Amino acid sequence: MKKVIKNGMIVTATDTYEADVCIENGVISLIGENLSTQDAEVIDASGCYVFPGGVDPHTHLEMPFGGTVSKDDFETGTIAAAYGGTTSIIDFCITKKGEPLQNSIDVWHAKSKDKAVIDYGFHLMIGEMNDRVLNELPSVIEEEGITSFKVFMAYKNVLQADDETLFETLIAAKELGALVMVHAENGDVIDYLVKKALADGNTDPIYHALTRPQEIEGEATGRAATFTGLADSQLYVVHVSCADAAKQIADARDKGIDVWGETCPQYLVLDQSYLERPNFEGAKYVWSPPLREKWNQDFLWNALRTGQLQTIGSDQCSFDFKGQKDLGKGDFSKIPNGGPMIEDRFSILFSEGVKKGRITLNQFVDIISTRAAKLFGLYPKKGTIAAGVDADIVIFDPTVERTISKEAHHMAVDYNAFEGMKVTGEPVSVLSRGEFVIRDKQFVGKVGSGEYLKRAKYGSTFKRESPLTT
Amino acid sequence: MKKVIKNGMIVTATDTYEADVCIENGVISLIGENLSTQDAEVIDASGCYVFPGGVDPHTHLEMPFGGTVSKDDFETGTIAAAYGGTTSIIDFCITKKGEPLQNSIDVWHAKSKDKAVIDYGFHLMIGEMNDRVLNELPSVIEEEGITSFKVFMAYKNVLQADDETLFETLIAAKELGALVMVHAENGDVIDYLVKKALADGNTDPIYHALTRPQEIEGEATGRAATFTGLADSQLYVVHVSCADAAKQIADARDKGIDVWGETCPQYLVLDQSYLERPNFEGAKYVWSPPLREKWNQDFLWNALRTGQLQTIGSDQCSFDFKGQKDLGKGDFSKIPNGGPMIEDRFSILFSEGVKKGRITLNQFVDIISTRAAKLFGLYPKKGTIAAGVDADIVIFDPTVERTISKEAHHMAVDYNAFEGMKVTGEPVSVLSRGEFVIRDKQFVGKVGSGEYLKRAKYGSTFKRESPLTT
Amino acid sequence: MKKVIKNGMIVTATDTYEADVCIENGVISLIGENLSTQDAEVIDASGCYVFPGGVDPHTHLEMPFGGTVSKDDFETGTIAAAYGGTTSIIDFCITKKGEPLQNSIDVWHAKSKDKAVIDYGFHLMIGEMNDRVLNELPSVIEEEGITSFKVFMAYKNVLQADDETLFETLIAAKELGALVMVHAENGDVIDYLVKKALADGNTDPIYHALTRPQEIEGEATGRAATFTGLADSQLYVVHVSCADAAKQIADARDKGIDVWGETCPQYLVLDQSYLERPNFEGAKYVWSPPLREKWNQDFLWNALRTGQLQTIGSDQCSFDFKGQKDLGKGDFSKIPNGGPMIEDRFSILFSEGVKKGRITLNQFVDIISTRAAKLFGLYPKKGTIAAGVDADIVIFDPTVERTISKEAHHMAVDYNAFEGMKVTGEPVSVLSRGEFVIRDKQFVGKVGSGEYLKRAKYGSTFKRESPLTT
Amino acid sequence: MKKVIKNGMIVTATDTYEADVCIENGVISLIGENLSTQDAEVIDASGCYVFPGGVDPHTHLEMPFGGTVSKDDFETGTIAAAYGGTTSIIDFCITKKGEPLQNSIDVWHAKSKDKAVIDYGFHLMIGEMNDRVLNELPSVIEEEGITSFKVFMAYKNVLQADDETLFETLIAAKELGALVMVHAENGDVIDYLVKKALADGNTDPIYHALTRPQEIEGEATGRAATFTGLADSQLYVVHVSCADAAKQIADARDKGIDVWGETCPQYLVLDQSYLERPNFEGAKYVWSPPLREKWNQDFLWNALRTGQLQTIGSDQCSFDFKGQKDLGKGDFSKIPNGGPMIEDRFSILFSEGVKKGRITLNQFVDIISTRAAKLFGLYPKKGTIAAGVDADIVIFDPTVERTISKEAHHMAVDYNAFEGMKVTGEPVSVLSRGEFVIRDKQFVGKVGSGEYLKRAKYGSTFKRESPLTT
Ligand SMILES: [Zn+2]
Ligand SMILES: [Zn+2]
Ligand SMILES: [Zn+2]
Ligand SMILES: [Zn+2]
Ligand SMILES: [Zn+2]
Ligand SMILES: [Zn+2]
Ligand SMILES: [Zn+2]
Ligand SMILES: [Zn+2]
Repeated sequence: MKKVIKNGMIVTATDTYEADVCIENGVISLIGENLSTQDAEVIDASGCYVFPGGVDPHTHLEMPFGGTVSKDDFETGTIAAAYGGTTSIIDFCITKKGEPLQNSIDVWHAKSKDKAVIDYGFHLMIGEMNDRVLNELPSVIEEEGITSFKVFMAYKNVLQADDETLFETLIAAKELGALVMVHAENGDVIDYLVKKALADGNTDPIYHALTRPQEIEGEATGRAATFTGLADSQLYVVHVSCADAAKQIADARDKGIDVWGETCPQYLVLDQSYLERPNFEGAKYVWSPPLREKWNQDFLWNALRTGQLQTIGSDQCSFDFKGQKDLGKGDFSKIPNGGPMIEDRFSILFSEGVKKGRITLNQFVDIISTRAAKLFGLYPKKGTIAAGVDADIVIFDPTVERTISKEAHHMAVDYNAFEGMKVTGEPVSVLSRGEFVIRDKQFVGKVGSGEYLKRAKYGSTFKRESPLTT
Repeated sequence: MKKVIKNGMIVTATDTYEADVCIENGVISLIGENLSTQDAEVIDASGCYVFPGGVDPHTHLEMPFGGTVSKDDFETGTIAAAYGGTTSIIDFCITKKGEPLQNSIDVWHAKSKDKAVIDYGFHLMIGEMNDRVLNELPSVIEEEGITSFKVFMAYKNVLQADDETLFETLIAAKELGALVMVHAENGDVIDYLVKKALADGNTDPIYHALTRPQEIEGEATGRAATFTGLADSQLYVVHVSCADAAKQIADARDKGIDVWGETCPQYLVLDQSYLERPNFEGAKYVWSPPLREKWNQDFLWNALRTGQLQTIGSDQCSFDFKGQKDLGKGDFSKIPNGGPMIEDRFSILFSEGVKKGRITLNQFVDIISTRAAKLFGLYPKKGTIAAGVDADIVIFDPTVERTISKEAHHMAVDYNAFEGMKVTGEPVSVLSRGEFVIRDKQFVGKVGSGEYLKRAKYGSTFKRESPLTT
Repeated sequence: MKKVIKNGMIVTATDTYEADVCIENGVISLIGENLSTQDAEVIDASGCYVFPGGVDPHTHLEMPFGGTVSKDDFETGTIAAAYGGTTSIIDFCITKKGEPLQNSIDVWHAKSKDKAVIDYGFHLMIGEMNDRVLNELPSVIEEEGITSFKVFMAYKNVLQADDETLFETLIAAKELGALVMVHAENGDVIDYLVKKALADGNTDPIYHALTRPQEIEGEATGRAATFTGLADSQLYVVHVSCADAAKQIADARDKGIDVWGETCPQYLVLDQSYLERPNFEGAKYVWSPPLREKWNQDFLWNALRTGQLQTIGSDQCSFDFKGQKDLGKGDFSKIPNGGPMIEDRFSILFSEGVKKGRITLNQFVDIISTRAAKLFGLYPKKGTIAAGVDADIVIFDPTVERTISKEAHHMAVDYNAFEGMKVTGEPVSVLSRGEFVIRDKQFVGKVGSGEYLKRAKYGSTFKRESPLTT
Repeated sequence: MKKVIKNGMIVTATDTYEADVCIENGVISLIGENLSTQDAEVIDASGCYVFPGGVDPHTHLEMPFGGTVSKDDFETGTIAAAYGGTTSIIDFCITKKGEPLQNSIDVWHAKSKDKAVIDYGFHLMIGEMNDRVLNELPSVIEEEGITSFKVFMAYKNVLQADDETLFETLIAAKELGALVMVHAENGDVIDYLVKKALADGNTDPIYHALTRPQEIEGEATGRAATFTGLADSQLYVVHVSCADAAKQIADARDKGIDVWGETCPQYLVLDQSYLERPNFEGAKYVWSPPLREKWNQDFLWNALRTGQLQTIGSDQCSFDFKGQKDLGKGDFSKIPNGGPMIEDRFSILFSEGVKKGRITLNQFVDIISTRAAKLFGLYPKKGTIAAGVDADIVIFDPTVERTISKEAHHMAVDYNAFEGMKVTGEPVSVLSRGEFVIRDKQFVGKVGSGEYLKRAKYGSTFKRESPLTT
């Protein structure tokens, strides 16, 4: 049965206008004034924005890390995502050296199938580069529709790849039509600083931040950008946390290098002082890169405003404070890195960004949804509101005021990093391919209804002119 | 009678999708797949893009300059604009020191009324700042809907304002909700260099370029941006011609200053060597700022790509080669500044930008139409394709190859600056508020049908959150 | 009778070594170990540095300003200078529009002759540029030996020149072999901000700083540097007070432009908060440019360390707190600009620079003496310790600790800007052309013994290879 | 017997003056006008400069590389150095992983003892960092007087250290008082590009340059500088070849990081096109980093002028064209890296730098001698002309014009990289500790007379205030 959303204010990455939206067969069929509601279920969106569903390009669900596994899996994680207004995620498939890539991809399919309530895709970690890997990549792209590769410049002796691997991945990605993603921190320097801090008896959570100074995030970012320019390839820097890194991205872009940058809600709102909270509470705020000194926030917001940063990922990787984060009591380096973020990403960007006048409403849509959809080959099925696209839609009340808390959230963990923070605006209803997942703030979706997203090659949806003339 | 555009590929500043467009009462009423054509005139757009009409934020029609008057007036100029795909222009109303602003506005209304075939608005030149001017500005904004003020930093002893005037204009504009525009070149240095060149017997057109080096365009741009930051105001730099100026704009934006930059087709395609053409032909290429060394073009294109420049104006100000440009024979400083550009702006950006892979198709729409509509308070009536907006539409064939020439163009002057240049793509039909102005490449509009555009205050259409919640 | 300085540690802009110095006929004749003291007056410099006398390139003695005259004249001012370790000064000769330059030069000769106790030269202010001025410049250089021209970019309607005057001065200076000096602040913006502040009833001394923001010192500095590059000329920016201006100088130098920068003791040690002192005490700290936020100091020190700034001037222009500074009670714009600085310049740079490890001992000599001597055509007579040069020598005890105060100083005014500040190091004896001016911390010189310094053309003492081969 | 140099023009890093120099016991005892020549050998320096002997901080004599050994050893190399005006060198002692550092130092002593004709010291390569190395470093510094450590960021799998090693070396150096030197190129990227080029059949010498793009010299330089800032340590970047690297050094210095940069004659005079010379001649010009595009030269010269680069090393590492360079026929990666440069370094900097007006005569002395002496703990024994210092002196005729050629040079190899180049100026006589090594352009020294130089800790000769007060 078709649906008609009435009386809402449609918002895309460029437009804001009042019109009705008709949905048929999971797809938007018609947009216009005073659409007929005959034979249709009517959804009243009075006083609400009608946004395209959020696209979260950066999640780690059921992710093994440091001897434990991130708490939210594809079920709880995607339910929380949907509550928050997100209708597509791309999760990181972690690979192992010496093993076929397909093995890891199969593991990730097993984790997600029959669990996700919204659509999902995978990025693929590249930890080594050799003939075996090179031979496997074409099928990864063509068969699996995985068109983005992640390289770690940090986590020495664990995930970290050397510069030659990164450079070869950039070369290969360019030839194959994939986008290379980097975790940009200098793992060697961190390794030394961590060992030094522990040797000096500095074991508290704050040392997580102090052993990962922003200079070496800037350094690694600039290094990766330089490689990208040399390889004439394309790069996406995940979780940009600080001015040093954002500046490197801007400089590279100004030189004509094809570099994109993602930041995360935590870097826009929280700061390094959180890591100093007593009673080991600082552990709740342990991400890599770490939270930074507060002055960086203005720099990041301005970079979003000018378009020198383009997306926002949640870097969702949640661990319980009790039972998981406390693995690092007495040794900050053993605190599992990451936090619960998938649910609040959308509302925080709206409340702190749009309501506080830092970005426009259309920029909000671009950052939260459209740009990621385009960069990662999901567009135009995902990422906008227009005739013919998937009806992944968020009906959003921009006036409601509420307080973020672990009691109110839907993630599986025992704390919320924004506990007590007041935000304005909340998703009321969320549709995935035309079906309600959230209705009137209640989950009404079906576990396992989320579909795996085979993604198009990098640039195919935005770099070339269009399907019409190519 | 309503119209339905069928089978086209709709392109906005963010989206590209196939759908039909229904137009009623001059406005887009419906967008969707397989729209009913009952009671409708059907327009077939097969194989074509359906673009929002171009918005040209920078024209000088029937403009007095150096003892002559620019050739194209609001009739020939807007007809040519329409042929080229432009459906709105904003012309510069030149004021005189010591006279009421309204006098000049009245002169401009007289020039344009009953002549224009597309809609038009005015920017207002501010040449002095004092109580009289300050007192008149509120009515200029509220009554006339003129929400952008132009200050000249060059043309010493003619149009040039001093720094205090510019600074006060920025302060006033901020309070009143207007956008300040600058012609950014250092007129004092130019004045010296011109006198020196003439004294040395250097009278050829090339000396126009040599006496206006890009360093002093960069200098003036940086100066205006610095003032804007201090005044916490907003600035739009017209006709950015070179890397030095574009870099100053990018730097200011990176510092959080609200600065925007416009370039022009000539700076993207032509270069300083054209001024050296024999037989005084160089005079055809005399703009201020002048054409630059070719290497600047890559810098400008990249700035459009990254969003550090945002719009493209024509700076239309046409003079016949014979009878007007030749006023400067034997004295380059007497060559009327400007050229015919209003018609080719749209196609050149498409052909050189999109077809050559420098910008995306959606960026093209943003640059040629949407961004200017937003910055100058015309959005959402103008600048996009969505339900409820004015049906200013260009049906554009992206495959046709053609050659620009003075024989083929529709401007009133005796030469074309791009003579012989091959471009791909051409507007087939152009509608203004739902009525054909150009149909199948023929002018079918009505002289005088263009309406004067009262414009909204700066920021009202894009800076604040939206009409919904404010 | 010849003199031999024994047991001192000689310090030049490059070397530090123990040796004796023999002085004959006012000139250094011999440097070596264990010099014979036969027929010589022996001066014991045990435990002391033997420095070349300071060269202060920036003083305003008996200078008319805002309806009063700076308190220290060429007698009290040069005595204080000598106490402080300075043996040469260059004072600014202020000219008047429409009058012959020579008139003003004659006024300055009259002020200084028979008064100065150390040697002195003049810079010449250029307030307008026309044929009369151009015609007079050659004799200024050849006859008067005045080889530096000062242009004011601030003090609107009083001293300020327009950009064309500055540019022409740069062109003329290049041809004639002079160095152009600028006071770099945007006078137009200041003029507006001052009027605005007063209109708003903001009359306290702190508004002197708030109406001269550092952005417009940076702007004016960059503008002057850009002009210098275009003119292929040479520039010296006086009293650089802030990071913005220092950065512009560094950028210009990195581009190959011949720009030099001077800072002053007050900008290295004091900050904007001094202007907020109660009971109008802030007026004591009114300089233009104003004191800045404290964070600028690190930037300035580092620029001295790397050589991006090269000299330190006192900008001596002293006014009594009672009777002069209080002209500005109730209107900060009427506070005479300037302060007493000629005496402490040398010791502050030593104590804050060398003793605190910010610059080396040799850099100290370069900054306090050698570089200014070279830039302004006094070298090699002045500015170093070597055989054949004028015996302008400071015997300096680097260990004595003392407190700066108006009681202890020798300037004619009723306050000291560094009142209560502890410094390490003090001149013990000072010789000018071989004669004691200060001996064992007492003035023993003769009023009027200072000689007028005709200076060599810019570059003649350091740009060209050397006298040997040119 | 004492010597008196008469009638010369003494030049130091700051002064240029006519005076006589008296030498006793290998040391300068007296400088002055008309020195007595009683009991002295008189050396007439009429028409000549009297320079401090050159200090070459970068040589590889008898250096194993790529299966061969550099041709010039400590005998031929130091004789050539002396002919060229150099009286001190610092050679790189190459270490082996897993072996005691002292072993390598002993090897270097064995190579040099009884061979060198001028004084010499060693830098020490650090290829790994662990407790054994850390334990050995104090004796390296205290016993051997080796106060500079070299880390290679390139030559993957051969000399290259990882980032953690570099960072630890910086930390250790700071604690111990040593200066860290880096060969700054990204070895990983080079490794890939070389393998790729060879796989593609690109084997000619030009591919040596094309596989080492300047971007990755800039990248590695910036990385090392960032580490230095974090470690609060000190860095010296050897053989800066290009704008990208020089800019990184300038940026770091502007941020207050203690970084120094050395360039080499080849980068100032030769360019990448030399590598394209036919008949494998390009191999003569194979250095790492490679020669660059010509436009970089202006940037390097300007950086020397402004002091953003401070020294010039020869990077002497000579191989015969026949028999050594030709190891790389058919595979550019097998061409031994390096060239004969020790002899011409001095004259090229004089002729191209001073005579062409790019640097001053005093800057020349600083760059060629003084600064290296200070940075590497040789000052004040070496690096200047003043009472008490070693009589290492070059009597230099600045007027003679000559042509560089392999016939005229004194290095052991069969080609000269500057063959046919005309230079102005030549050392006439050279003294080492008061004894002639070169007299009237003939070698008159004694093989083995050169002494090993134990060097002072970093900063001890220039950072602290002076011996007097510390
Ligand atoms: Zn990460
Ligand atoms: Zn992550
Ligand atoms: Zn203009
Ligand atoms: Zn214009
Ligand atoms: Zn001043
Ligand atoms: Zn002054
Ligand atoms: Zn090397
Ligand atoms: Zn080397």
